[in-house]
Amino acid sequence: MSRQNIGVIGLAVMGKNLALNIADHGYTVSVFNRSGKRTQELLAECTTNNIEGYFSLEEFVQSLERPRKIILMVKAGSPVNDIIKQLKPCLTPGDIIIDGGNSYFADTINRSRKLEAEGFHYFGVGISGGEEGARRGPAIMPGGDVGAYESIGQILTDISAKAEGEPCCRYIGGDGAGHFVKMVHNGIEYADMQLICEAYSILKGVMHMSPSDLHEVFKEWNQGELNSYLIGITSDIFAKKDTDSDHYLVDMILDAAGQKGTGKWTGQVALELGIPIPTITGAVFERYLSSDKATRMEAGKLYGDCAKTKQRGADFVEPVRKALYASKICAYAQGFSLMLEASRQYGWKLNLSGIAKIFRGGCIIRAQFLNKIADAYSDDSELKNLLMDNYFKTVIENYTQAWRDVVATAVTSGISVPGFSSALAYFDSYRTETLPMNLLQAQRDYFGAHTYQRIDKEGTYHTQW
Amino acid sequence: MSRQNIGVIGLAVMGKNLALNIADHGYTVSVFNRSGKRTQELLAECTTNNIEGYFSLEEFVQSLERPRKIILMVKAGSPVNDIIKQLKPCLTPGDIIIDGGNSYFADTINRSRKLEAEGFHYFGVGISGGEEGARRGPAIMPGGDVGAYESIGQILTDISAKAEGEPCCRYIGGDGAGHFVKMVHNGIEYADMQLICEAYSILKGVMHMSPSDLHEVFKEWNQGELNSYLIGITSDIFAKKDTDSDHYLVDMILDAAGQKGTGKWTGQVALELGIPIPTITGAVFERYLSSDKATRMEAGKLYGDCAKTKQRGADFVEPVRKALYASKICAYAQGFSLMLEASRQYGWKLNLSGIAKIFRGGCIIRAQFLNKIADAYSDDSELKNLLMDNYFKTVIENYTQAWRDVVATAVTSGISVPGFSSALAYFDSYRTETLPMNLLQAQRDYFGAHTYQRIDKEGTYHTQW
Repeated sequence: MSRQNIGVIGLAVMGKNLALNIADHGYTVSVFNRSGKRTQELLAECTTNNIEGYFSLEEFVQSLERPRKIILMVKAGSPVNDIIKQLKPCLTPGDIIIDGGNSYFADTINRSRKLEAEGFHYFGVGISGGEEGARRGPAIMPGGDVGAYESIGQILTDISAKAEGEPCCRYIGGDGAGHFVKMVHNGIEYADMQLICEAYSILKGVMHMSPSDLHEVFKEWNQGELNSYLIGITSDIFAKKDTDSDHYLVDMILDAAGQKGTGKWTGQVALELGIPIPTITGAVFERYLSSDKATRMEAGKLYGDCAKTKQRGADFVEPVRKALYASKICAYAQGFSLMLEASRQYGWKLNLSGIAKIFRGGCIIRAQFLNKIADAYSDDSELKNLLMDNYFKTVIENYTQAWRDVVATAVTSGISVPGFSSALAYFDSYRTETLPMNLLQAQRDYFGAHTYQRIDKEGTYHTQW
Repeated sequence: MSRQNIGVIGLAVMGKNLALNIADHGYTVSVFNRSGKRTQELLAECTTNNIEGYFSLEEFVQSLERPRKIILMVKAGSPVNDIIKQLKPCLTPGDIIIDGGNSYFADTINRSRKLEAEGFHYFGVGISGGEEGARRGPAIMPGGDVGAYESIGQILTDISAKAEGEPCCRYIGGDGAGHFVKMVHNGIEYADMQLICEAYSILKGVMHMSPSDLHEVFKEWNQGELNSYLIGITSDIFAKKDTDSDHYLVDMILDAAGQKGTGKWTGQVALELGIPIPTITGAVFERYLSSDKATRMEAGKLYGDCAKTKQRGADFVEPVRKALYASKICAYAQGFSLMLEASRQYGWKLNLSGIAKIFRGGCIIRAQFLNKIADAYSDDSELKNLLMDNYFKTVIENYTQAWRDVVATAVTSGISVPGFSSALAYFDSYRTETLPMNLLQAQRDYFGAHTYQRIDKEGTYHTQW
C-alpha cells in the first residue's frame, strides 16, 4: 500500500481549501475531521483522486508516509492541545505536526519545546489570505526546526501564493517565529485599514466627496505608489450600489467595527518587548471605540458641532494621498521594528527582507510598496528602522509638509485622525534630538528618587529637589 | 504575654516606612525580614516601643494577635509566592495576609482564590505615594474579602493620607480589585506626566520660554483648575539651578525616559478588556521611543529641519493650558472607563467616586480636579464616560477650539504631541456619530466574509463585492 504525502486535520473552510490546494499540486492528502460529516462532504464534493478521507485518527496517521506530516487546521487554543494529545500515541519520533491556525506565538513556543523534547517536530505556520488564499495560494510563514523544514518546505512552497514569480513562503525561524510574524502582519493590517478609513473620512469631511468620487480617487491611487490589495478593494467598495435602496452600499453599512483579537496580541506583545507601535495599537483601540454606536450617538447629541470644518478644494486630494502614504510607512516601520526586536529577544534571526517579500502575495496587506521594504532590509539587514532607509527618508521628507497640513486640517475640522496623527507623532518623536523627557526624568527623580542621567557627563544622578 | 496588632514582612524602604507609620498611630507592630540585618537596623534606628523585631518567621507569627494580620512588603512576583509558602504552615485559618506590593492584579486574584479556599484571607492592597507616602500617609486601595476587611480597615484608614479631612483609604472590591485600581492609577500617571511634558515642549518650541518663564507659568497654572502635585513639582523643577554649570538643571538632564513596567500592564489589560486607552498607552510607547537617544540623534541628523515652527506670542499660554486640561480629562476618562469595565467583568462593584477621592491624597496624581470626577460618579454611578458628565462636557466645549489650535500648531511646527493628539482623537471619535468604520466593515466583508450590519434595518449581511 502506498502512503499519502501529507495529512490535514480539521475540515472547516480553511482546512478543506488547504487540502484541495495541496491535492491540486499533485500531492496525496489524507484528511480527518472530528465529526465525520465534513470528511464525507469533502470526499463527495472533490473530483481529485489525491484526497483520502479517514474516520479514525489512528488509520489516518497510519495512512501517511514517514516522517509523517500532519497539518492541524483547528481553532486556536485548547482544540490544538486536545488534538496533539490524541495524536501523540499514534506518532513515531521524527513525525512533524504543523499548526496552520492562528495560534498565539507563545503557545506555539511552549508546544514546540515540549514536543521537540519528546522527539517530534512541531511547526507553527502562519497562513494568510483567508478562504480564497487557502484555496488558491496563501502567504505562508513557517516556524520550527530548520532541519525538519526540509521535509515540508517543498509542499508549502508549492501551494503558496506567488508574487513576481517568487513563492510567498520562506522558512521564518525557530518555534513561534512563524506565528509571531503572522500576528504582526495582522497588526499592520489593522493600521493599514484604519489609515485608509481616515483618508476617506477627510476626503468626505472637508471635500464632501461622494462614493463615486471616492471610487475614482482610490482607483487612481491604486495606480501609484499606494498600489495594494486594500486600496483596490476600497475602490471597488465605493462603486457598489445598494440593491435595497438608491444609495451606495457603503453609506448603508453600520460604522461599528468588529475584530477577532489578533490585533490586540500585537499591542500586548509590543508593550511587553518595549517597542512603540502607537499607530497599530491605536487602530485596535479605534475599533473598540467605534463599536459602541449607541453611546457615540448620545455623545454626538450632547456635544453637537464642536469644530468648524475647513473647506478644501480639489487640490487637497494629493496632500491626503501623501499623508496616507507617509502614515502607512510609519505603521510598517512600527511593525517591522517589533519583528526586529522579537528576533533579538527570541533568537529567531528573522530575515525582514524575506518577510516583506512573503507579504507581497496571498495576504491582505499585499502591496507594491513591500518591495521597497524588502530592498531596505536587503541593503542593510541591521537597519534600525524603516525611517532610516534612504527611499523612505526621501518620501517622508517630500511629503512631510502635506502630511502636517492634512493632520492640522483634520484636527481643526473635528475629524478624528488617530492613525494619521499617531504616525506623525511617531515620526516627529523619532527624529527629534531633544524630547521633553528631561522634564519627565526630573519628575520621576523628584517623587520617586528614580535618578537621571545628564547630557554633559556620565553617571547616574539624584537631586534633592 | 500581650500580642502585637499587626506584622510587616520585608523591611526595604517601603516596608520599613510603613511599619513606622503604623507604630506612629499607636498600633503594635512585629517586623520580620529575610535577612536579619535590616531588622536590627530598624530596631536600632527607631525610638518607638511599638515595634518588635523577630528573626524567626514562626516566632514572628506567634507574636501576633488573632486573626493575624500580616503585611507583605516584598518584591512582586515569585518573592510573594515564596513568603506565602513559608508562612502558611505557621498560620491558623482566619488569619489575614496582606500583599502591599505592586503585584499584578491577576496574580492577586489567583493567590486570593487559593488562600481563601484554604481558609485564610488574602488582600491585595495598592499603596501609592512612594517612600514618603508610606512613612507619612499613602493612598491605600485594599482588595479582598469584605467581611475580613473589618479586621484591617481601621489600621489602614488610620495610616492613610487624608485629603480634605477624608482618609485616602476605602475598601475597593474583591480579590484583585485593589491592585487593579493601583495599576490604573499608574497608567493615568504616565499619561499625566506625558501631557505635562508636551505642554512644556510646545511652550518651549513655539514661544522659546526659558526654565524660569516655565517656572512662572506652571506656578500660575497650579493656582487654577490644573492644581495638582505634578504641576506643583514641575514648577519647582523649572526653578532649580544646576550646581555644576550655569544652566537650569532641567536643561542638563538626558531626555531618555525610564519606566518600571506598571504602565505597560494597564495597556495590556485594556487591550484584553476591549477598552480604548490610547493616551495612556501612547505615554508608555513614548517612554520607549525616547529611551534610544542615540538613534534619535542619528535620525535627527538625517532629517534635519522638517517643519516650519509657527511662532506664537504670550497669548498662546492660555490655549496650551486649555489643551492640557482637556487632554488630561480624556486621559482620566480612559482610565476610569477601564475601571468601569473591569468592575463589570470581574464583578468588583467598584465605587468610582470613592476611588477618585482616594486618589486625592498621598499619591502622585493627587489633584483638585479629582473632586470633579468624584462628583461626576456620585451624581451618576452608571456614568458611561467622564465625557458625558456635565462639568467635563462644559469644560471641553469651551476649550475645544483652543485645543484644536494647539494641536494643529504643534503638528505644523514639528513638535511631537502624541498625548494631546491622541486625547483629541479620542474625544472626536467618541462624539462622532458617523465614523468611517462603515468602510472598514465593508473591507472586512470583502476579504473575509466577516459580514456587516446596516443602518436602516436589523440583521447581518454579506455582499459578493
